[in-house]
Amino acid sequence: MLRGKLLIAQGGGPTAVINQSVVGIINEAKKYENIEAIYGALRGVEGIYNEDFIDLGFESDSNLEKIANTPAAALLSTRVKPDTKYLKKILKVLKAHNIRYFFYIGGNDSSDSLRLLSNEAKKTNYDLVLVHIPKTIDNDLVLNDHTPGFASAAKFVANAFCGVDKDNKALGGIYIGVVMGRHAGFLTASSCAYKKKDEDGPHLVYVPENPFDIKEFLKDVKEVYDKLGRCVIAVSEGICDKNNVPIITKLMKSVDKDMHGNVQLSGTGALGDLLSEEIKTKLNISRVRADTFGYLQRSFLGSVSKVDQKEAREVGEMGVKFAIRDNKNGSVTINRIGDYQVEYKLKPLDSIGGKTRYMPKDFMNKKKNNVTKKCIDYLRPLVGEEDIQTGEFYLRKVKKILNENK
Amino acid sequence: MLRGKLLIAQGGGPTAVINQSVVGIINEAKKYENIEAIYGALRGVEGIYNEDFIDLGFESDSNLEKIANTPAAALLSTRVKPDTKYLKKILKVLKAHNIRYFFYIGGNDSSDSLRLLSNEAKKTNYDLVLVHIPKTIDNDLVLNDHTPGFASAAKFVANAFCGVDKDNKALGGIYIGVVMGRHAGFLTASSCAYKKKDEDGPHLVYVPENPFDIKEFLKDVKEVYDKLGRCVIAVSEGICDKNNVPIITKLMKSVDKDMHGNVQLSGTGALGDLLSEEIKTKLNISRVRADTFGYLQRSFLGSVSKVDQKEAREVGEMGVKFAIRDNKNGSVTINRIGDYQVEYKLKPLDSIGGKTRYMPKDFMNKKKNNVTKKCIDYLRPLVGEEDIQTGEFYLRKVKKILNENK
Repeated sequence: MLRGKLLIAQGGGPTAVINQSVVGIINEAKKYENIEAIYGALRGVEGIYNEDFIDLGFESDSNLEKIANTPAAALLSTRVKPDTKYLKKILKVLKAHNIRYFFYIGGNDSSDSLRLLSNEAKKTNYDLVLVHIPKTIDNDLVLNDHTPGFASAAKFVANAFCGVDKDNKALGGIYIGVVMGRHAGFLTASSCAYKKKDEDGPHLVYVPENPFDIKEFLKDVKEVYDKLGRCVIAVSEGICDKNNVPIITKLMKSVDKDMHGNVQLSGTGALGDLLSEEIKTKLNISRVRADTFGYLQRSFLGSVSKVDQKEAREVGEMGVKFAIRDNKNGSVTINRIGDYQVEYKLKPLDSIGGKTRYMPKDFMNKKKNNVTKKCIDYLRPLVGEEDIQTGEFYLRKVKKILNENK
Repeated sequence: MLRGKLLIAQGGGPTAVINQSVVGIINEAKKYENIEAIYGALRGVEGIYNEDFIDLGFESDSNLEKIANTPAAALLSTRVKPDTKYLKKILKVLKAHNIRYFFYIGGNDSSDSLRLLSNEAKKTNYDLVLVHIPKTIDNDLVLNDHTPGFASAAKFVANAFCGVDKDNKALGGIYIGVVMGRHAGFLTASSCAYKKKDEDGPHLVYVPENPFDIKEFLKDVKEVYDKLGRCVIAVSEGICDKNNVPIITKLMKSVDKDMHGNVQLSGTGALGDLLSEEIKTKLNISRVRADTFGYLQRSFLGSVSKVDQKEAREVGEMGVKFAIRDNKNGSVTINRIGDYQVEYKLKPLDSIGGKTRYMPKDFMNKKKNNVTKKCIDYLRPLVGEEDIQTGEFYLRKVKKILNENK
């Protein structure tokens, strides 16, 4: 058993439950006498590079519970993708502090950074256990049924669409909600998690897995509008044309890219406004409204999935168990083994990093414009059903007396 | 005491608690033997015009409770502003059905429609009691401390900013949240309801009550950014320049107006994108994100203020008591008489309709770029404090060993 310090850092976009994982790791790590101290690095790998460590053993249990229930990333985050020079510096710092366990909570990119760091450590024969704790609202990590953070973001999207659908029903017209999702459509599909009846919105759903064709889109919208007098649409910000060019990049004056080469899709209403304008002008429908859910999806206070909270905590705890007892690198995965039950495993870092998981094909209908029952069955246990005790009037009609506007 | 039917309708934009008022009216009205039946008109005054009535006595108590907890407008809504011809037709329908009490749940415009209808009824000597039940997330009705619907929307905005502030802290840069509010800044000010410390966002708040100057805005942003390395901004969609021209109308290709002459401000990300672009280009800050909260603010499922729920129910109940016992027209008002306690009164329709209430001047600081303690004291009992059990790390620093990046 390795003796030394344990370090925790958070990378990539925050989520509503990422701090649960931090607290899960801290509380579990305290149980092992070979762990000399528990450190947190501020701003992910940047914190290691700059030796910006805090002593997580100095936090009260009560404060840890508050932090666990706070969205975003209490250890702060980073978009930095370390190159070889950066990794060598990181390794030097880890050695100086006798850090033997490093837990990096993040998505694809964070997992890949660990894989590269593991190669550097091997070169210098430094015994170091590297564990990737999954987190991403995009739900796009391979070998996982779902990832912590997704279910809470999904619940936000489900709650949002359940409400705006009723709002749209009250006033008519077209409503477009633009949902986060670069490559995978899981979060956009979650717009349907609380649908009860076919007439309930969203009536149309577009995900990045399928090429987006504006002509087909307008045809779909017209069909629903002609039938219901209204239409609620969920669309991923990452939708691309048949040449795989994001629709949004056609619109923006300047394109922001992070160090991982990802184009900025969020934080702008451009895609929603483009689709609105198309509907207004081509279909001649006047009341068209588009909202871009943006950052609220991943950090809104008070729309957290209970399942997500528990699993995010557990995945941190289990990561420590795997690391200390099995003494090997890996990424903790979550798999569904019952309805509803999960199990956790440790998978090799190179089986996760840099890969993207897409929605199963049978989660979308044949026309690729709505989700299937199978998709809703997948989502329901994750988002929970406690919020959907909604009702509507029986609509017992009163007989007309004047009956003048036939 | 008038004997006849009681009619309920909803007008204007939906809210999270408007259905509470409907159920409050129904349950109270059932207690009076002079009420022959309780009808609902579908789509506000349109439902009266078209004799689209439903029998609300045919709803189970259990379903009514579900409806009360459902956002938006279960009786559907309208933006129609009736003219004299329309009002005459409405009156004819009310007479044909022997409707003697009409409860219109809505904002400024709905209250004004009732005032006009009251004049028509007087001309024909038809005994009719008209009650305006207040509702507006804008909180802009005169003679009220606040209006049902506002507190829940305010809670959504407070929850959103509490979360995005931590998200922004984790990754840095500038975040702009565009909040609903045409003339009154109450909802935008609510972004600060859960602020604990000065360093917490939003750091800048702009409301429609004060002229918006883009140069001053950029100066404010630079000042905060230089100090904190980040900046969270709350801005009302209704901000205007010194000539009272909405900033957003300068941007949109086509301007939508409703029958009340209101310009469409929501359902587009244009204002947020303009402000982003200004910051990016003029201040040379790369990470700038803007979200427009849009329709989520008024209909999101699961972010409801408990105080708001209770008051929205009560204002409906009290309306029935005033109408039946006092037999006169009016608008039910809510006033704060303690911390925290309210009282309900019936005020003349012409004292409410067509008027706009603005934020008290002392709710904003001298520089007109943030709220005051007085504003937060006003908001806290409305939004409730149950959601702000958030935490952050004590940040006990670990001594650097290498200390290379001084």
